[in-house]
Amino acid sequence: MNSNSFGTAFCLTTFGESHGAAIGGVIDGCPAGVLLDKSLIERELSRRKPGQDNTMSARKEPDEVEFLSGLFEGKTTGTPIAFLIRNKDAKTSDYENIKNVFRPSHADFTYQMKYGIRDYAGGGRGSARTLLPCVVAGAIAKQILATQDIEIQSNVIQIGEEREKDTVGAIVQGTIKNVPVGLGEPAFQKFNAVLAHAMMTINAAKGFEIGEGFNAASMRGSECNDEFIFDGERIRTKTNHSGGVQGGITNGEDVVFRVAFKPIPSVMFPQQTVDIQGNATTLEIQGRHDVCVVPRVLPMVEAMAAMVTLDFILLKKCNKI
Amino acid sequence: MNSNSFGTAFCLTTFGESHGAAIGGVIDGCPAGVLLDKSLIERELSRRKPGQDNTMSARKEPDEVEFLSGLFEGKTTGTPIAFLIRNKDAKTSDYENIKNVFRPSHADFTYQMKYGIRDYAGGGRGSARTLLPCVVAGAIAKQILATQDIEIQSNVIQIGEEREKDTVGAIVQGTIKNVPVGLGEPAFQKFNAVLAHAMMTINAAKGFEIGEGFNAASMRGSECNDEFIFDGERIRTKTNHSGGVQGGITNGEDVVFRVAFKPIPSVMFPQQTVDIQGNATTLEIQGRHDVCVVPRVLPMVEAMAAMVTLDFILLKKCNKI
Amino acid sequence: MNSNSFGTAFCLTTFGESHGAAIGGVIDGCPAGVLLDKSLIERELSRRKPGQDNTMSARKEPDEVEFLSGLFEGKTTGTPIAFLIRNKDAKTSDYENIKNVFRPSHADFTYQMKYGIRDYAGGGRGSARTLLPCVVAGAIAKQILATQDIEIQSNVIQIGEEREKDTVGAIVQGTIKNVPVGLGEPAFQKFNAVLAHAMMTINAAKGFEIGEGFNAASMRGSECNDEFIFDGERIRTKTNHSGGVQGGITNGEDVVFRVAFKPIPSVMFPQQTVDIQGNATTLEIQGRHDVCVVPRVLPMVEAMAAMVTLDFILLKKCNKI
Amino acid sequence: MNSNSFGTAFCLTTFGESHGAAIGGVIDGCPAGVLLDKSLIERELSRRKPGQDNTMSARKEPDEVEFLSGLFEGKTTGTPIAFLIRNKDAKTSDYENIKNVFRPSHADFTYQMKYGIRDYAGGGRGSARTLLPCVVAGAIAKQILATQDIEIQSNVIQIGEEREKDTVGAIVQGTIKNVPVGLGEPAFQKFNAVLAHAMMTINAAKGFEIGEGFNAASMRGSECNDEFIFDGERIRTKTNHSGGVQGGITNGEDVVFRVAFKPIPSVMFPQQTVDIQGNATTLEIQGRHDVCVVPRVLPMVEAMAAMVTLDFILLKKCNKI
Repeated sequence: MNSNSFGTAFCLTTFGESHGAAIGGVIDGCPAGVLLDKSLIERELSRRKPGQDNTMSARKEPDEVEFLSGLFEGKTTGTPIAFLIRNKDAKTSDYENIKNVFRPSHADFTYQMKYGIRDYAGGGRGSARTLLPCVVAGAIAKQILATQDIEIQSNVIQIGEEREKDTVGAIVQGTIKNVPVGLGEPAFQKFNAVLAHAMMTINAAKGFEIGEGFNAASMRGSECNDEFIFDGERIRTKTNHSGGVQGGITNGEDVVFRVAFKPIPSVMFPQQTVDIQGNATTLEIQGRHDVCVVPRVLPMVEAMAAMVTLDFILLKKCNKI
Repeated sequence: MNSNSFGTAFCLTTFGESHGAAIGGVIDGCPAGVLLDKSLIERELSRRKPGQDNTMSARKEPDEVEFLSGLFEGKTTGTPIAFLIRNKDAKTSDYENIKNVFRPSHADFTYQMKYGIRDYAGGGRGSARTLLPCVVAGAIAKQILATQDIEIQSNVIQIGEEREKDTVGAIVQGTIKNVPVGLGEPAFQKFNAVLAHAMMTINAAKGFEIGEGFNAASMRGSECNDEFIFDGERIRTKTNHSGGVQGGITNGEDVVFRVAFKPIPSVMFPQQTVDIQGNATTLEIQGRHDVCVVPRVLPMVEAMAAMVTLDFILLKKCNKI
Repeated sequence: MNSNSFGTAFCLTTFGESHGAAIGGVIDGCPAGVLLDKSLIERELSRRKPGQDNTMSARKEPDEVEFLSGLFEGKTTGTPIAFLIRNKDAKTSDYENIKNVFRPSHADFTYQMKYGIRDYAGGGRGSARTLLPCVVAGAIAKQILATQDIEIQSNVIQIGEEREKDTVGAIVQGTIKNVPVGLGEPAFQKFNAVLAHAMMTINAAKGFEIGEGFNAASMRGSECNDEFIFDGERIRTKTNHSGGVQGGITNGEDVVFRVAFKPIPSVMFPQQTVDIQGNATTLEIQGRHDVCVVPRVLPMVEAMAAMVTLDFILLKKCNKI
Repeated sequence: MNSNSFGTAFCLTTFGESHGAAIGGVIDGCPAGVLLDKSLIERELSRRKPGQDNTMSARKEPDEVEFLSGLFEGKTTGTPIAFLIRNKDAKTSDYENIKNVFRPSHADFTYQMKYGIRDYAGGGRGSARTLLPCVVAGAIAKQILATQDIEIQSNVIQIGEEREKDTVGAIVQGTIKNVPVGLGEPAFQKFNAVLAHAMMTINAAKGFEIGEGFNAASMRGSECNDEFIFDGERIRTKTNHSGGVQGGITNGEDVVFRVAFKPIPSVMFPQQTVDIQGNATTLEIQGRHDVCVVPRVLPMVEAMAAMVTLDFILLKKCNKI
């Protein structure tokens, strides 16, 4: 089942709760012989660090990553790369008030119902902090993709107007540039399907679209089709309504996709909810929280896109003997 | 890798090309001892049959399903259920004109580039006809879900206006009713992520959203949060902006999602494209094709949703000893 | 879970019961562009055909394989290769006497207990006939391996003396020749571990060993170690006590392994057993059955070895970018 | 691919090299709500500790396990249980002499050839020390099995006579007691096949057998069959030649199996070998090494058996709706 693993050839397993001893991951299948630049990994992590602008919470997380295995003299060895990030600023006592109360639109209720037990501190396994290991693995994937001239970008294309004590949603656009033709597998491992899967695992993601996306539903075939042309060097498409994927397989154009994020549920207003016995209660979330997933979510979107792309590059090697 | 398999505990493997000998599937992990009603399977298949309204192509496909294994005296035995549907109306010669020419926004180009070979007749493995085995497996999943009072529905909520020779897109909404609390697994097998994955494997799907979806990006937290209440029997949410999933796990409310479909690329106009050598050419697609994926796609959306739901119901059994 | 699938990059899913409509398989991940010689597949199947010598049962099984997908103009296309073999000579009525009685050391009892239902005719899913799809997939794997000069052989190194009405066991030795260095993956996908797994899935297999095997337990390190030498061309070992695998990874020497098979449990004597209610009863197995798994099992041993080898050749491509 | 993961429902991923920063593991799918007794985990680890008798090396490994996630107030939460063991006594400089030289019958050569790079210190990923995380996961599995009255035992049934500077092999027998009927899945996930796979992943394992094993090859069916009887309470077998598994599925009798281990290759004699360029050289392995895998391997055999058994108990829950 491995619900905490993602990827086939390049596979990340993550672990950890927001306020436990540590969060971390194990990368199985990272190609051997790659010299890793750890400063690039730290750079990705620091993009996610709080306190960078005024939409983010003030909790201090140094987020130092320690590598435990799979590297030798700075190079990958082909064996699992394990790493961890200690949770230094974790005070479980801060969360006594949500021990028996379900925060609206958080994972408290569903985890409690599913398992009959939950680590409530900081949201436990449901916290967005548990996505950090993806940023680390994505940063490694990016470095390997860079050796193939493949680049991942993301930018915010819509964001709500910040309001007092409330939170806002956003839409992020991702672009994978210089994608080789032929990534993605038929039927159930289509590039777009796995990319959708990857993006929808990010906390607060509520929608995914590729190319024209939902807009395509309002188009006619004659408008939406991408005409093939020969540019003197290779076959390309004149337009890119498809977003770089046709029949589930990349066609060599930029992969362009968007992810919709709901507002973070931790608003600063008192909210009506129930406790674990079903009694009505009023909850006021303590501390300072993020107003919007942006910009923290940008490195996450890029990380997941990088892992998906690298995975398919490795899998493609098996298409021919 | 198993790119032609979907599901973990209830796992469907599909095979077949549009104009090969047959298409079909193997279901591994269907619970034992379930009495199957084959007429319900046929009913799902007939919902997908062409010629039901004037938006669909006229090709006659009887689509009779033959079961080969896994059933004994009408009941599932726990061993693999294999089935096939013969391709009776298949004339490869009809497709000589696309043998060396890439139809715009079809899978012709990407399959050719990926594998260096393709079965071009009727689109081969890329044809929407290859989704039929999902409808069969979904019909079986639906029957098992019905024993738990779980019901899957779908309806068209947006469709383009039909035009002469052109094709149109659509948006389909799916609803899973009476979902148990606790389906979905943490991290990478979130219910919404696997559902997105499932839906994006359907041909022509370009977008997926759950609950408020892309609309959530324009909302504030105070508007989008779902307050918990106790209805006298169980804890529920007052609203369902989340679409039945919180923290990746179902909360017992209806799962509500939407899938955007692009217009079918087979327009009846002459189109500019290139051949396999990159030479510019004009292509006029022959025969009568569907104008829109709707209504054929409705049983597909329901089938994939049924498989995902049943799979998670089985997986949930492993959460406790 | 996919308990009816074997392999990672080259993955076979099998289905079918001994006396159902058909048995068959789906190969997912066969490399594209390989021209298959169907006569070689039939030759492997015919090696397994009954009536070849006097140790085998007289049931006539034509075992004609029909390919349904994944081939185009004789070549593999990279999409799933599905095939089936109809069960033509199947009379369920012959097995009325074992409907409610458990044959000693067969799978009747365990299947009934596990699933609460079983297809009893001919042993159902537990019949050795259900291994035939492995022979087909193995024959395809062998052809692909042959393009790399890799050859699989097997021979009987021990067999019991045939006795009136009784059955006998045997030991089969397999050899994989010209294996590339570097097949197998660290930790849990060691070449020897996956090979053991593969061999132990064959009906009646009770033991597996590689290289010196059980004999190694009686050796000293100074006797059992394989000294490295340079043969002018490449590094090799002077001896091959390891059986071609060191640290779970092939070292370029022949892979040599042995599989022990118990006597077929269908003896022609009356046997004491119980029925489904636990009542003591005497069972006399009808018809003519095989005396020994040999020689039918030879193509099975080779087929599984071929699939394992090809799978690891494909997986090795992912070790480096 | 996940070659460093083992198990389906209860899945362990391991990482680490002998002389890296740490070794450890992540358990995904451990049932929720189980109170773990850490002293039992430490007891299993201490059984493997060196210096317990005079067949073992003198390296001091405190082997303290630190849990990082998945536990809350001493109970499992259903989320991944990550743990690590620091390599405190690791001096890479001790291994300079094997940096460019291949130790006979170790994994040095095969890792170097496969990946083009290797962490040579202490054997790196190929060291038996990397099996420790299995002991931890096995100790957890054992505790959960104990709640179902299932017990795992192992004992040495053959061991070579210790000699000056040389090493010896051994045979270990394992027994799983009070196994429920119905564990194991048809076709490729037979209980015996997965158990063989598990055992053959242990360093130095060269053979596996179940029940009569290789001895069955010399038996007649009338001797080897296990007659069914009713013992007043349930259906059992009069004998247990099958070793508790029939048709790949447990029949409720004790599972009895044996694993053959070769002598540890680190003999104290000078040995002939080659260096990385193929030049002949003499190698004298430094330090004090184990003479035999026994008794260190006993907790490993039990751990793997425990993981396999628990995994199949969880998977069996999915057999029926």
